[in-house]
Amino acid sequence: MKDERAQEKAPIPDIVIGRLPVYLRTLRLLADEGREVTSSQELGEHLGISSAQIRKDLSHFGEFGKQGTGYNIEFLCRQLQKILNVDRIWPVVLVGAGSLGTAIANYQEFESSGFRIVSVFDEDPQKIGQPIGHGLRIEDFADLLPQVKESEAQIAVMAVPAHAAQRVAVQLIEAGLNSILCYAPITLSVPAHVRVEYIDPVVHFQHMTYYLR
Amino acid sequence: MKDERAQEKAPIPDIVIGRLPVYLRTLRLLADEGREVTSSQELGEHLGISSAQIRKDLSHFGEFGKQGTGYNIEFLCRQLQKILNVDRIWPVVLVGAGSLGTAIANYQEFESSGFRIVSVFDEDPQKIGQPIGHGLRIEDFADLLPQVKESEAQIAVMAVPAHAAQRVAVQLIEAGLNSILCYAPITLSVPAHVRVEYIDPVVHFQHMTYYLR
Repeated sequence: MKDERAQEKAPIPDIVIGRLPVYLRTLRLLADEGREVTSSQELGEHLGISSAQIRKDLSHFGEFGKQGTGYNIEFLCRQLQKILNVDRIWPVVLVGAGSLGTAIANYQEFESSGFRIVSVFDEDPQKIGQPIGHGLRIEDFADLLPQVKESEAQIAVMAVPAHAAQRVAVQLIEAGLNSILCYAPITLSVPAHVRVEYIDPVVHFQHMTYYLR
Repeated sequence: MKDERAQEKAPIPDIVIGRLPVYLRTLRLLADEGREVTSSQELGEHLGISSAQIRKDLSHFGEFGKQGTGYNIEFLCRQLQKILNVDRIWPVVLVGAGSLGTAIANYQEFESSGFRIVSVFDEDPQKIGQPIGHGLRIEDFADLLPQVKESEAQIAVMAVPAHAAQRVAVQLIEAGLNSILCYAPITLSVPAHVRVEYIDPVVHFQHMTYYLR
């Protein structure tokens, strides 16, 4: 394992990949402030992690800054966008048009980050046909399959109750949506080729209360 | 570091603490299904992590199951609730009554997990005074300080735009809210005694697209 080429071929740790979007977000905020150059020190201070960690994470992907002159922000943004495959717009399917689904459909930050909600599905006949988000209408979840074929979406967001989540996930995966962001407070049972990420505010709250006495 | 007592006194890794709420959530779902006993194997299969990892995580806090008979679900739930300090209800202050804030205020899962949104603040005069969530009314963010004093809240959720987030965080911290869940797509600059957790769907999406080609 000390052979350098062997190390280069080793897959990049998933935890490193998980930090790249946070670096990208921070760099874009700096660019929005009109900044042109930054350093691993400055990024580290912003993010509360060490500059050595940032340099090591980025070194997996190449040489992005010169010793002493720091990083060109625009260049590093473009490189990170390429690495993360967000130098394009990914169509995203949203399931669940309740209060949370509506908030997700309205969210302004997706388009500039590489994502566009292209369809919103629900099962509630009262909701189907109603307008939602940026010029969309809520569609019948029963029509998922043809809609996904048309949009060629690979990514889904689930904003459905826990009791419906597993059933909805099975149908999403059947439709070929193999990357799922799940807001339901549950761990889904999925095949190995499906990637699920979870957002659950209770998990964050309970993590914080451990430290409160 | 090989002295066992020294190891026992070492702080428990934060990543272990972060997994406990997920264990608790899974155990509670099993309890809701009427189940009484489970095993580290079963939990591991549910969660996609190894049973050894679960046993190791739990061993930091004591002996919760007997070799061969598994875990009593109710007992382990109660123990995890104690460890995470959610054997009580924590008042939570929400800032931001837009689409996302409304979804958070409406969310049904908080109360059963140890949390209650007790106040919702916004700066928009059009919103102040309007009903929101479970019997609340949107309050003026200018009244944050007296309201927090009254509720003795320590936890805040921020559902505000990125450009307002740092300013809002400073006022939350001044009011004594030192545990903050931030939905704004930004990394806050906060004093060392303040704990911030972040929820940003874009970070999850971009993590997933790295693996899509």
